[in-house]
This record gives sequence, C-alpha cells and structure tokens, in this order.
Amino acid sequence: MMVIQLSERQEKIIEIVKGNQPITGEEIANQLNLTRSTLRPDLSILTMSGILDARPRVGYFFIGKPSLNYISDEIKSILVEDIKSIPVILEESTSIYDAIVFMFLEDVGSIYITNNGILSGVISRKDIIRTVMGGTDLYKVPIGVIMTRMPNIIYVKPKDSVLTAAMKLIEHEIDSLPVVEGIDNSNKDYRVVGRITKTNITRIFVELGNNI
Amino acid sequence: MMVIQLSERQEKIIEIVKGNQPITGEEIANQLNLTRSTLRPDLSILTMSGILDARPRVGYFFIGKPSLNYISDEIKSILVEDIKSIPVILEESTSIYDAIVFMFLEDVGSIYITNNGILSGVISRKDIIRTVMGGTDLYKVPIGVIMTRMPNIIYVKPKDSVLTAAMKLIEHEIDSLPVVEGIDNSNKDYRVVGRITKTNITRIFVELGNNI
Repeated sequence: MMVIQLSERQEKIIEIVKGNQPITGEEIANQLNLTRSTLRPDLSILTMSGILDARPRVGYFFIGKPSLNYISDEIKSILVEDIKSIPVILEESTSIYDAIVFMFLEDVGSIYITNNGILSGVISRKDIIRTVMGGTDLYKVPIGVIMTRMPNIIYVKPKDSVLTAAMKLIEHEIDSLPVVEGIDNSNKDYRVVGRITKTNITRIFVELGNNI
Repeated sequence: MMVIQLSERQEKIIEIVKGNQPITGEEIANQLNLTRSTLRPDLSILTMSGILDARPRVGYFFIGKPSLNYISDEIKSILVEDIKSIPVILEESTSIYDAIVFMFLEDVGSIYITNNGILSGVISRKDIIRTVMGGTDLYKVPIGVIMTRMPNIIYVKPKDSVLTAAMKLIEHEIDSLPVVEGIDNSNKDYRVVGRITKTNITRIFVELGNNI
C-alpha cells in the first residue's frame, strides 16, 4: 500500500473524464493542450489506483476514489487477541462488599463473574451503585445475586476484529466485553481469557493517530 | 489523496534501490531483465509517491513509505467540536443523593459541577461508590464536598483535535473530559460547552472502520 497526493493536473484529468466518459487519452490531451505522451504517467497512475478504468478502443471511465478504504482495512486488520487486557474475575459466591473492594484494588469498571471457572455474569460500577442505594446487605449477599447473568452477556472471541468489539460496545451501550473461549463444542460454556474496554479502543486510536 | 496497492514489481524495485542506492534506471532494468521503458511508469509512480527520489545524473534513492501518515492525518483532522456530546452539569450545592439520581436519569459516568455557571469540579461513578461506602450522609452533604476540584481537572477546548483529547483520557486514566470555553481572558474561569468520553472515541473508531 502507499498513499499519493494527487497533482493538480491529475485532479483535472479526473474531472474531464467524469464529465465526458468514455473519453480517449488523445481527447483528454487536447482539452489540456498537452501531448499524449506527457499525460501517459498521469493516466497510468490514475488507472493503477483504480480511479480510472481504461478500455481498449473505447476510452477512459471514472470508477471512484478509493482512498478511505485504506483506514478501514487497517482498522479491520487489528484483532481482539492483539490488544486485549487481562480480565478481572471473581467467583459468584463472593460477597458484594468484597467485590467492591476488589474493584477498587484492581481499578476496573467491570468484573467478570464465574461459576467454577465458567463465565456466568458481569458486574459494573453502575450495578454496584444501584445495589448500594437499594439498601442490600453488602456483607451477606453474594455478587451472583445482583450481576447481569448469562445468556444476557455480550462477549467477543480472540479472533474477532477490534472493530467488531467496538461496534458491540457502542450498540449495547456497555463499557467492557469479556473475551471468551469455548470450553467444549456446546457453544454454551465459556472461560474468560481477556477483557476489551473503551480504554483499549481509545489506546488504539491514539496509536493510529500518532502513527506508532 | 489516493491509495494504491503496490505491484510485486514495484516492491522489487524498492528492494533493489534500498540495497544499491544510488542506482540508475538502466541498472534497475538490468537487474529485473526488463527494458528501461517498461519500468518508466513504475518509476514515475514510485517517485511521485515520495517513496523514491530521482536525482539527475546520480540515480534513485529510497526515501520511505509514507502510507501510514494518511491515517494519522485523517485522525488529526477531527476536532473536539465536531464530535462532542452534551455536558451533564449540576451546581455545587446539589446533595450527593440528588447527584446520584441525576447520574442514573442521564445515564452518564461523570457529572461536571459548576459554581454560578463556572466549572469547579467533576464527579465520577468511582467517587460516588467511595463516598457511599465511607458512610457520608448522602442527603445532607453537597456534591461540592466530595468532587475533584479545579485546578485538578483535565479539560479540552473545542478547537483541540480529538487525538489530543484521546491522549489526555489515556494519560490521566479518566473516562471523561469537559469541553470548556474561557469566560474572560484570565484563563482561570471556564464554562462547560461539551463532553468528550471514551464512548465518543470508540464511536469515531467504528465510523473510520466502517468507512462512514
């Protein structure tokens, strides 16, 4: 891949083709008061880039400017497994109080909850505030009682693209996605192998923007 | 701007120039068993894109592949004012309890606090949990007592790039940035005109990835 800044003359050629297609190289040269051979490098660049199409004995056609696909391709090539963070996990039987303390110690906004190592729920800061305000006994009630429970948990797989993960975060209005791997072939039981948050996405954005 | 997929032959030419610079077009053609005129379009594409530099009577030099700058330029061109959300604001005198209720009603993770309309603090879900667990009287204590206070607040201006905002979010490990405008020229008093969160950044990432 490479990126080229189009010259003024190339932009003019595109405009001429757009308005007169199909048009021969000879006719384009006439409109610009240039010789056919002067235009040859410009025309070959414009056809190689897919902006123009050249059909023998017919002339040039305008196809389109493909520039923005480049960013899109670059973004789609980043996988969840390339950037996932370490998951923060507790068992269902943990008290809500201990879960809150753990959340502060680990400084995370969500904790994944497991039952014998299998993903069973997720708890967020918002869930915690709601519970505390509701007067629940934080020392006695286990976290499993107030968590969001499977199958209502949105997750991603290690080989999913980060774009897929970002779309799930936006669509479901959540802050965090467990990265899971199937334990057997039932497609029902998963163990948690990572964590994707909006922080991970923001970090990639910074890296792309700073060309790292 | 446009993007071109380099051909195999162009990649080979780059490798030859890298290893033998300066090298003439004639010598490159010999190494590839091709004629000079066959190579002419390739060489003009490679020089126009800035990958190679051609110096008369010396030969071709390798400059570098500029492709990734394109993403970086695109990202840097997005401004805070283009994508900011509506800020959620309360006055300092509001009780913590009312602030919590408001946070749930508006479904935001942070609220900006003002004193007579001037930004004075920020409160996050994490601050709320800490306060509630500490046994503070939520009905009597005003939000101004527990908020993070100016000048310890990280903010952005409407004309800052979104990349700058994303870097501040990552560097300071925060979820939200008030977008502010100065009230006078003192550079001390600001009113809040917007909000930038990791959600905004994630949304741009999705748009770039989907080529919207």
